[in-house]
Amino acid sequence: MRIALLGGTGDVGEGLALRWAYHSDHEVVIGSRDPEKARTKAEEYETELSSRGVDRKINGFENEMAADRARVVVLAVPAYHATDTVAAVADSLSEGDVLVTPATGMKRDENGFHYNRPGAGSVTRLVADAAPDGVSAVGAFHNLAAGRLANLDADLGIDTLLVADDDDAKETVRLLAEDIDGLRPLDAGGVANAPEIESLTPLLINVAMNNDGLHNLGVRFD
Amino acid sequence: MRIALLGGTGDVGEGLALRWAYHSDHEVVIGSRDPEKARTKAEEYETELSSRGVDRKINGFENEMAADRARVVVLAVPAYHATDTVAAVADSLSEGDVLVTPATGMKRDENGFHYNRPGAGSVTRLVADAAPDGVSAVGAFHNLAAGRLANLDADLGIDTLLVADDDDAKETVRLLAEDIDGLRPLDAGGVANAPEIESLTPLLINVAMNNDGLHNLGVRFD
Repeated sequence: MRIALLGGTGDVGEGLALRWAYHSDHEVVIGSRDPEKARTKAEEYETELSSRGVDRKINGFENEMAADRARVVVLAVPAYHATDTVAAVADSLSEGDVLVTPATGMKRDENGFHYNRPGAGSVTRLVADAAPDGVSAVGAFHNLAAGRLANLDADLGIDTLLVADDDDAKETVRLLAEDIDGLRPLDAGGVANAPEIESLTPLLINVAMNNDGLHNLGVRFD
Repeated sequence: MRIALLGGTGDVGEGLALRWAYHSDHEVVIGSRDPEKARTKAEEYETELSSRGVDRKINGFENEMAADRARVVVLAVPAYHATDTVAAVADSLSEGDVLVTPATGMKRDENGFHYNRPGAGSVTRLVADAAPDGVSAVGAFHNLAAGRLANLDADLGIDTLLVADDDDAKETVRLLAEDIDGLRPLDAGGVANAPEIESLTPLLINVAMNNDGLHNLGVRFD
Protein backbone atom coordinates (compact mmCIF):
# COMPACT_ATOMS: atom_id res chain seq x y z
CA MET A 1 0.00 0.00 0.00
CA ARG A 2 1.19 3.50 -0.76
CA ILE A 3 1.23 5.76 2.29
CA ALA A 4 1.85 9.49 1.87
CA LEU A 5 3.24 11.32 4.87
CA LEU A 6 2.43 14.98 4.36
CA GLY A 7 4.60 17.05 6.66
CA GLY A 8 6.75 13.96 6.57
CA THR A 9 9.84 16.03 7.28
CA GLY A 10 8.75 16.67 10.91
CA ASP A 11 9.17 14.48 14.00
CA VAL A 12 6.05 12.34 13.78
CA GLY A 13 6.34 12.05 9.99
CA GLU A 14 9.95 10.95 10.26
CA GLY A 15 9.12 8.33 12.89
CA LEU A 16 6.19 6.87 10.97
CA ALA A 17 8.16 6.87 7.70
CA LEU A 18 11.12 5.04 9.22
CA ARG A 19 8.97 2.54 11.11
CA TRP A 20 6.76 1.62 8.15
CA ALA A 21 9.71 1.38 5.80
CA TYR A 22 11.63 -0.71 8.33
CA HIS A 23 8.88 -3.02 9.60
CA SER A 24 6.63 -3.40 6.55
CA ASP A 25 6.54 -3.52 2.75
CA HIS A 26 4.38 -0.43 2.35
CA GLU A 27 5.57 2.19 -0.10
CA VAL A 28 6.28 5.35 1.87
CA VAL A 29 6.20 8.74 0.16
CA ILE A 30 7.27 11.94 1.89
CA GLY A 31 5.35 15.15 1.21
CA SER A 32 6.18 18.73 2.08
CA ARG A 33 5.12 22.15 0.85
CA ASP A 34 8.77 22.41 -0.24
CA PRO A 35 9.58 19.52 -2.65
CA GLU A 36 13.32 20.00 -2.26
CA LYS A 37 13.01 19.57 1.53
CA ALA A 38 10.88 16.47 0.98
CA ARG A 39 13.53 14.95 -1.31
CA THR A 40 16.35 15.77 1.10
CA LYS A 41 14.56 14.18 4.08
CA ALA A 42 13.51 11.15 2.03
CA GLU A 43 17.17 10.58 1.17
CA GLU A 44 18.10 10.90 4.85
CA TYR A 45 15.55 8.23 5.71
CA GLU A 46 16.91 5.96 2.94
CA THR A 47 20.42 6.41 4.35
CA GLU A 48 19.23 5.61 7.90
CA LEU A 49 17.49 2.46 6.69
CA SER A 50 20.40 1.46 4.50
CA SER A 51 22.74 1.70 7.50
CA ARG A 52 20.55 -1.02 9.03
CA GLY A 53 20.71 -3.22 5.95
CA VAL A 54 17.30 -2.21 4.63
CA ASP A 55 17.40 -0.82 1.11
CA ARG A 56 14.16 0.98 0.38
CA LYS A 57 13.28 3.64 -2.16
CA ILE A 58 11.58 6.57 -0.45
CA ASN A 59 10.45 9.39 -2.71
CA GLY A 60 9.92 12.98 -1.66
CA PHE A 61 7.51 15.33 -3.43
CA GLU A 62 5.45 18.43 -2.97
CA ASN A 63 2.35 17.46 -0.90
CA GLU A 64 -0.11 17.26 -3.80
CA MET A 65 2.08 14.91 -5.80
CA ALA A 66 2.89 12.85 -2.71
CA ALA A 67 -0.83 12.30 -2.06
CA ASP A 68 -1.44 11.20 -5.64
CA ARG A 69 -2.23 7.49 -5.84
CA ALA A 70 -1.66 7.07 -2.10
CA ARG A 71 -4.38 5.00 -0.44
CA VAL A 72 -3.63 6.49 2.98
CA VAL A 73 -2.58 10.10 3.48
CA VAL A 74 -1.21 11.06 6.90
CA LEU A 75 -1.50 14.76 7.79
CA ALA A 76 1.65 14.98 9.92
CA VAL A 77 1.37 18.76 10.01
CA PRO A 78 0.62 21.25 12.80
CA ALA A 79 -3.09 21.44 13.70
CA TYR A 80 -3.44 24.91 12.20
CA HIS A 81 -2.32 23.57 8.81
CA ALA A 82 -4.50 20.43 8.83
CA THR A 83 -7.46 21.76 6.85
CA ASP A 84 -5.26 23.85 4.49
CA THR A 85 -3.34 20.70 3.71
CA VAL A 86 -6.52 18.73 2.98
CA ALA A 87 -7.64 21.51 0.60
CA ALA A 88 -4.23 21.55 -1.09
CA VAL A 89 -4.32 17.83 -1.88
CA ALA A 90 -8.08 17.38 -2.43
CA ASP A 91 -7.69 16.92 -6.19
CA SER A 92 -5.20 14.10 -5.62
CA LEU A 93 -7.61 12.10 -3.45
CA SER A 94 -9.93 9.40 -4.77
CA GLU A 95 -13.00 7.78 -3.32
CA GLY A 96 -11.99 5.27 -0.67
CA ASP A 97 -8.78 7.04 0.26
CA VAL A 98 -8.19 7.60 3.95
CA LEU A 99 -6.96 10.78 5.65
CA VAL A 100 -5.17 10.18 8.96
CA THR A 101 -4.74 13.02 11.43
CA PRO A 102 -2.31 12.80 14.38
CA ALA A 103 -2.41 16.57 15.10
CA THR A 104 -3.66 18.26 18.22
CA GLY A 105 -4.19 21.92 19.02
CA MET A 106 -2.19 23.15 22.00
CA LYS A 107 -1.50 26.39 23.76
CA ARG A 108 1.10 27.04 26.42
CA ASP A 109 0.97 29.15 29.56
CA GLU A 110 3.22 29.41 32.61
CA ASN A 111 1.80 26.14 34.00
CA GLY A 112 2.37 24.00 30.96
CA PHE A 113 0.54 22.87 27.85
CA HIS A 114 -3.20 22.83 27.36
CA TYR A 115 -5.57 21.38 24.82
CA ASN A 116 -6.76 24.15 22.53
CA ARG A 117 -10.00 22.61 21.40
CA PRO A 118 -11.19 23.86 18.00
CA GLY A 119 -14.72 25.24 17.80
CA ALA A 120 -15.67 22.27 15.61
CA GLY A 121 -14.88 19.95 18.54
CA SER A 122 -11.54 18.45 17.56
CA VAL A 123 -8.86 18.53 14.88
CA THR A 124 -10.15 15.14 13.73
CA ARG A 125 -13.60 16.66 13.22
CA LEU A 126 -12.07 19.57 11.25
CA VAL A 127 -10.32 17.10 8.96
CA ALA A 128 -13.44 14.94 8.60
CA ASP A 129 -15.46 18.02 7.63
CA ALA A 130 -12.80 19.16 5.15
CA ALA A 131 -12.42 15.76 3.48
CA PRO A 132 -13.78 15.43 -0.09
CA ASP A 133 -16.80 13.20 -0.63
CA GLY A 134 -15.94 9.53 -0.34
CA VAL A 135 -12.75 10.16 1.64
CA SER A 136 -12.81 9.22 5.33
CA ALA A 137 -10.92 10.70 8.26
CA VAL A 138 -9.26 8.67 11.00
CA GLY A 139 -7.69 10.17 14.13
CA ALA A 140 -4.59 8.17 15.07
CA PHE A 141 -0.92 8.33 16.07
CA HIS A 142 -1.43 11.31 18.42
CA ASN A 143 0.38 10.17 21.49
CA LEU A 144 3.50 8.57 20.16
CA ALA A 145 6.77 9.33 21.78
CA ALA A 146 8.14 11.09 18.69
CA GLY A 147 11.80 10.78 19.66
CA ARG A 148 11.45 7.07 20.38
CA LEU A 149 9.40 6.50 17.27
CA ALA A 150 12.18 7.89 15.06
CA ASN A 151 14.86 5.89 16.84
CA LEU A 152 14.72 2.40 15.34
CA ASP A 153 16.80 1.08 18.24
CA ALA A 154 14.10 2.07 20.73
CA ASP A 155 11.36 -0.33 21.80
CA LEU A 156 7.95 1.30 21.74
CA GLY A 157 5.62 -0.75 23.94
CA ILE A 158 2.92 1.91 23.72
CA ASP A 159 -0.64 2.30 22.50
CA THR A 160 -2.20 4.46 19.85
CA LEU A 161 -5.89 5.30 19.93
CA LEU A 162 -8.06 5.30 16.81
CA VAL A 163 -11.27 7.22 16.18
CA ALA A 164 -13.32 7.23 12.99
CA ASP A 165 -16.93 7.10 11.89
CA ASP A 166 -16.06 4.78 8.97
CA ASP A 167 -15.22 1.32 10.27
CA ASP A 168 -13.44 0.22 7.08
CA ALA A 169 -11.14 3.24 7.17
CA LYS A 170 -10.46 2.63 10.86
CA GLU A 171 -9.60 -1.01 10.15
CA THR A 172 -7.18 0.03 7.39
CA VAL A 173 -5.34 2.31 9.82
CA ARG A 174 -5.50 -0.27 12.62
CA LEU A 175 -3.64 -2.74 10.40
CA LEU A 176 -1.04 -0.09 9.51
CA ALA A 177 -0.50 0.60 13.21
CA GLU A 178 -0.10 -3.12 13.89
CA ASP A 179 2.62 -3.23 11.25
CA ILE A 180 4.81 -1.17 13.59
CA ASP A 181 6.49 -3.39 16.17
CA GLY A 182 5.56 -2.47 19.73
CA LEU A 183 2.67 -0.22 18.80
CA ARG A 184 -0.77 -1.45 19.89
CA PRO A 185 -3.79 0.16 18.22
CA LEU A 186 -6.89 0.55 20.38
CA ASP A 187 -10.32 1.55 19.17
CA ALA A 188 -11.69 4.64 20.95
CA GLY A 189 -14.93 4.89 18.96
CA GLY A 190 -16.21 7.59 16.64
CA VAL A 191 -14.89 11.03 15.67
CA ALA A 192 -17.00 12.51 18.50
CA ASN A 193 -14.57 10.86 20.92
CA ALA A 194 -11.50 12.60 19.46
CA PRO A 195 -11.25 15.54 21.93
CA GLU A 196 -10.27 13.30 24.83
CA ILE A 197 -7.56 11.69 22.68
CA GLU A 198 -6.20 14.99 21.44
CA SER A 199 -6.14 16.23 25.09
CA LEU A 200 -3.71 13.48 25.97
CA THR A 201 -0.84 15.06 24.02
CA PRO A 202 -0.49 18.19 26.23
CA LEU A 203 -0.90 15.97 29.30
CA LEU A 204 2.04 13.81 28.22
CA ILE A 205 4.16 16.95 27.82
CA ASN A 206 3.12 18.23 31.27
CA VAL A 207 4.01 14.91 32.87
CA ALA A 208 7.37 14.84 31.10
CA MET A 209 8.08 18.42 32.22
CA ASN A 210 7.31 17.71 35.89
CA ASN A 211 8.99 14.35 36.49
CA ASP A 212 12.71 13.75 36.31
CA GLY A 213 13.69 10.89 34.09
CA LEU A 214 10.46 10.81 32.11
CA HIS A 215 10.71 12.12 28.59
CA ASN A 216 9.57 11.00 25.18
CA LEU A 217 6.49 9.61 26.88
CA GLY A 218 3.91 7.32 25.40
CA VAL A 219 0.95 5.80 27.10
CA ARG A 220 -0.21 2.27 27.77
CA PHE A 221 -3.76 1.33 28.75
CA ASP A 222 -3.83 -1.55 31.17
CA MET B 1 -2.39 10.24 59.51
CA ARG B 2 -6.16 10.40 59.54
CA ILE B 3 -7.69 10.26 56.04
CA ALA B 4 -11.39 10.93 55.58
CA LEU B 5 -13.01 9.44 52.51
CA LEU B 6 -16.19 11.41 51.87
CA GLY B 7 -18.41 9.46 49.56
CA GLY B 8 -16.36 6.57 50.85
CA THR B 9 -19.22 4.17 50.20
CA GLY B 10 -18.75 4.42 46.39
CA ASP B 11 -16.34 2.57 44.12
CA VAL B 12 -13.30 4.85 44.32
CA GLY B 13 -13.84 5.50 48.03
CA GLU B 14 -14.05 1.79 48.72
CA GLY B 15 -10.88 1.05 46.78
CA LEU B 16 -8.85 3.80 48.44
CA ALA B 17 -10.16 2.86 51.91
CA LEU B 18 -9.25 -0.80 51.48
CA ARG B 19 -5.85 -0.09 49.94
CA TRP B 20 -4.76 2.43 52.58
CA ALA B 21 -6.03 0.26 55.41
CA TYR B 22 -4.34 -2.79 53.91
CA HIS B 23 -1.01 -1.30 52.80
CA SER B 24 -0.43 1.45 55.40
CA ASP B 25 -0.98 2.48 59.00
CA HIS B 26 -3.10 5.51 58.20
CA GLU B 27 -6.39 5.83 60.04
CA VAL B 28 -9.17 5.62 57.46
CA VAL B 29 -12.57 7.17 58.18
CA ILE B 30 -15.56 6.70 55.88
CA GLY B 31 -17.93 9.61 55.35
CA SER B 32 -21.36 9.71 53.76
CA ARG B 33 -24.34 12.02 53.84
CA ASP B 34 -26.08 9.05 55.45
CA PRO B 35 -24.17 8.06 58.64
CA GLU B 36 -25.86 4.66 58.82
CA LYS B 37 -24.65 3.83 55.29
CA ALA B 38 -21.16 5.01 56.24
CA ARG B 39 -21.12 2.71 59.29
CA THR B 40 -22.42 -0.27 57.30
CA LYS B 41 -19.79 0.13 54.57
CA ALA B 42 -17.01 0.71 57.13
CA GLU B 43 -17.95 -2.60 58.75
CA GLU B 44 -17.88 -4.31 55.35
CA TYR B 45 -14.36 -3.00 54.78
CA GLU B 46 -13.30 -4.21 58.23
CA THR B 47 -14.69 -7.66 57.40
CA GLU B 48 -12.88 -7.74 54.06
CA LEU B 49 -9.58 -6.77 55.71
CA SER B 50 -10.13 -9.18 58.59
CA SER B 51 -10.61 -12.05 56.11
CA ARG B 52 -7.07 -11.25 54.97
CA GLY B 53 -5.69 -11.26 58.48
CA VAL B 54 -5.63 -7.48 58.83
CA ASP B 55 -7.59 -6.25 61.84
CA ARG B 56 -8.24 -2.54 61.46
CA LYS B 57 -10.82 -0.28 63.00
CA ILE B 58 -12.59 1.73 60.29
CA ASN B 59 -15.19 4.21 61.49
CA GLY B 60 -18.09 5.52 59.46
CA PHE B 61 -19.72 8.88 60.10
CA GLU B 62 -21.75 11.60 58.48
CA ASN B 63 -19.38 13.60 56.22
CA GLU B 64 -18.87 16.55 58.59
CA MET B 65 -17.86 14.34 61.49
CA ALA B 66 -15.69 12.18 59.22
CA ALA B 67 -13.75 15.25 58.09
CA ASP B 68 -13.19 16.41 61.67
CA ARG B 69 -9.54 16.07 62.67
CA ALA B 70 -8.65 14.44 59.33
CA ARG B 71 -5.51 15.88 57.80
CA VAL B 72 -6.50 14.76 54.30
CA VAL B 73 -10.09 14.77 53.08
CA VAL B 74 -10.81 12.92 49.83
CA LEU B 75 -13.93 14.06 47.98
CA ALA B 76 -14.87 10.69 46.47
CA VAL B 77 -18.22 12.07 45.36
CA PRO B 78 -19.72 12.77 41.92
CA ALA B 79 -18.42 15.99 40.36
CA TYR B 80 -21.76 17.76 40.80
CA HIS B 81 -21.54 17.20 44.56
CA ALA B 82 -17.90 18.25 44.96
CA THR B 83 -18.43 21.89 45.96
CA ASP B 84 -21.55 21.12 48.05
CA THR B 85 -19.50 18.61 49.95
CA VAL B 86 -16.71 21.12 50.58
CA ALA B 87 -19.29 23.60 51.91
CA ALA B 88 -20.85 20.94 54.14
CA VAL B 89 -17.55 20.08 55.83
CA ALA B 90 -15.90 23.54 55.78
CA ASP B 91 -16.29 24.04 59.53
CA SER B 92 -14.48 20.74 60.17
CA LEU B 93 -11.42 21.77 58.19
CA SER B 94 -8.37 23.42 59.75
CA GLU B 95 -5.53 25.39 58.25
CA GLY B 96 -3.10 23.00 56.57
CA ASP B 97 -5.69 20.36 55.80
CA VAL B 98 -5.72 19.03 52.26
CA LEU B 99 -8.76 18.42 50.05
CA VAL B 100 -8.23 15.74 47.40
CA THR B 101 -10.53 15.56 44.38
CA PRO B 102 -10.65 12.51 42.09
CA ALA B 103 -13.93 13.55 40.42
CA THR B 104 -14.46 14.40 36.79
CA GLY B 105 -17.48 15.77 34.98
CA MET B 106 -18.76 13.52 32.20
CA LYS B 107 -21.65 13.41 29.81
CA ARG B 108 -22.68 10.54 27.61
CA ASP B 109 -24.00 10.46 24.07
CA GLU B 110 -24.48 7.68 21.52
CA ASN B 111 -20.72 7.63 20.81
CA GLY B 112 -19.52 7.25 24.36
CA PHE B 113 -18.40 9.41 27.24
CA HIS B 114 -17.13 12.95 27.02
CA TYR B 115 -15.44 15.35 29.38
CA ASN B 116 -17.99 17.88 30.60
CA ARG B 117 -15.63 20.68 31.48
CA PRO B 118 -16.97 23.04 34.15
CA GLY B 119 -17.02 26.73 33.34
CA ALA B 120 -14.38 27.29 36.02
CA GLY B 121 -11.98 25.10 33.99
CA SER B 122 -11.97 21.84 35.93
CA VAL B 123 -13.49 20.11 38.94
CA THR B 124 -10.15 20.57 40.67
CA ARG B 125 -10.41 24.33 40.13
CA LEU B 126 -13.97 24.32 41.52
CA VAL B 127 -12.74 22.55 44.65
CA ALA B 128 -9.72 24.86 44.99
CA ASP B 129 -12.02 27.88 44.73
CA ALA B 130 -14.47 26.44 47.28
CA ALA B 131 -11.79 25.48 49.81
CA PRO B 132 -11.65 27.54 53.03
CA ASP B 133 -8.63 29.80 53.58
CA GLY B 134 -5.52 27.82 54.43
CA VAL B 135 -6.89 24.59 52.96
CA SER B 136 -5.32 23.39 49.70
CA ALA B 137 -6.80 21.35 46.87
CA VAL B 138 -5.02 18.52 45.11
CA GLY B 139 -6.38 16.71 42.05
CA ALA B 140 -5.47 13.02 42.25
CA PHE B 141 -6.73 9.43 41.93
CA HIS B 142 -8.83 10.18 38.83
CA ASN B 143 -7.86 7.37 36.55
CA LEU B 144 -7.75 4.38 38.81
CA ALA B 145 -9.33 1.19 37.66
CA ALA B 146 -12.00 1.26 40.39
CA GLY B 147 -12.84 -2.43 40.22
CA ARG B 148 -9.18 -3.43 40.44
CA LEU B 149 -8.48 -0.90 43.16
CA ALA B 150 -11.15 -2.44 45.39
CA ASN B 151 -9.94 -5.98 44.72
CA LEU B 152 -6.97 -6.51 47.02
CA ASP B 153 -5.97 -9.58 44.99
CA ALA B 154 -5.46 -7.44 41.88
CA ASP B 155 -2.09 -5.93 41.01
CA LEU B 156 -2.39 -2.29 40.01
CA GLY B 157 0.73 -1.36 38.02
CA ILE B 158 -0.80 1.98 37.05
CA ASP B 159 -0.12 5.67 37.45
CA THR B 160 -2.02 8.46 39.13
CA LEU B 161 -1.49 12.08 38.15
CA LEU B 162 -1.29 14.88 40.71
CA VAL B 163 -2.03 18.56 40.22
CA ALA B 164 -1.89 21.27 42.86
CA ASP B 165 -0.70 24.83 43.28
CA ASP B 166 0.57 24.10 46.81
CA ASP B 167 3.70 21.95 46.64
CA ASP B 168 3.48 20.83 50.27
CA ALA B 169 -0.08 19.59 49.82
CA LYS B 170 0.91 17.83 46.62
CA GLU B 171 3.81 16.13 48.39
CA THR B 172 1.48 14.94 51.17
CA VAL B 173 -0.79 13.30 48.60
CA ARG B 174 2.14 11.94 46.60
CA LEU B 175 3.33 10.07 49.69
CA LEU B 176 -0.17 8.72 50.31
CA ALA B 177 -0.31 7.45 46.73
CA GLU B 178 3.07 5.79 47.15
CA ASP B 179 1.71 3.95 50.18
CA ILE B 180 -0.51 1.97 47.81
CA ASP B 181 1.40 -0.93 46.24
CA GLY B 182 1.55 -0.73 42.47
CA LEU B 183 0.34 2.85 42.23
CA ARG B 184 2.89 5.34 40.88
CA PRO B 185 2.19 9.04 41.50
CA LEU B 186 3.30 11.44 38.78
CA ASP B 187 3.39 15.21 39.05
CA ALA B 188 1.38 16.92 36.29
CA GLY B 189 1.93 20.48 37.52
CA GLY B 190 -0.53 23.08 38.78
CA VAL B 191 -4.33 23.16 39.04
CA ALA B 192 -4.41 24.81 35.59
CA ASN B 193 -3.33 21.46 34.17
CA ALA B 194 -6.28 19.56 35.67
CA PRO B 195 -8.61 19.55 32.60
CA GLU B 196 -6.35 17.22 30.61
CA ILE B 197 -6.24 14.81 33.57
CA GLU B 198 -9.98 14.89 34.13
CA SER B 199 -10.45 14.25 30.37
CA LEU B 200 -8.63 10.96 30.69
CA THR B 201 -11.46 9.32 32.65
CA PRO B 202 -14.04 9.35 29.82
CA LEU B 203 -11.30 8.27 27.41
CA LEU B 204 -10.56 5.19 29.54
CA ILE B 205 -14.26 4.31 29.49
CA ASN B 206 -14.44 4.75 25.69
CA VAL B 207 -11.40 2.51 25.22
CA ALA B 208 -12.88 -0.13 27.53
CA MET B 209 -16.21 0.00 25.66
CA ASN B 210 -14.60 -0.46 22.24
CA ASN B 211 -12.00 -3.17 22.84
CA ASP B 212 -12.80 -6.72 23.85
CA GLY B 213 -10.93 -7.90 26.88
CA LEU B 214 -10.08 -4.44 28.18
CA HIS B 215 -12.02 -3.34 31.21
CA ASN B 216 -11.22 -1.75 34.53
CA LEU B 217 -8.55 0.20 32.72
CA GLY B 218 -5.80 2.26 34.23
CA VAL B 219 -3.04 4.08 32.47
CA ARG B 220 0.73 3.90 32.53
CA PHE B 221 3.03 6.62 31.22
CA ASP B 222 6.14 5.17 29.67
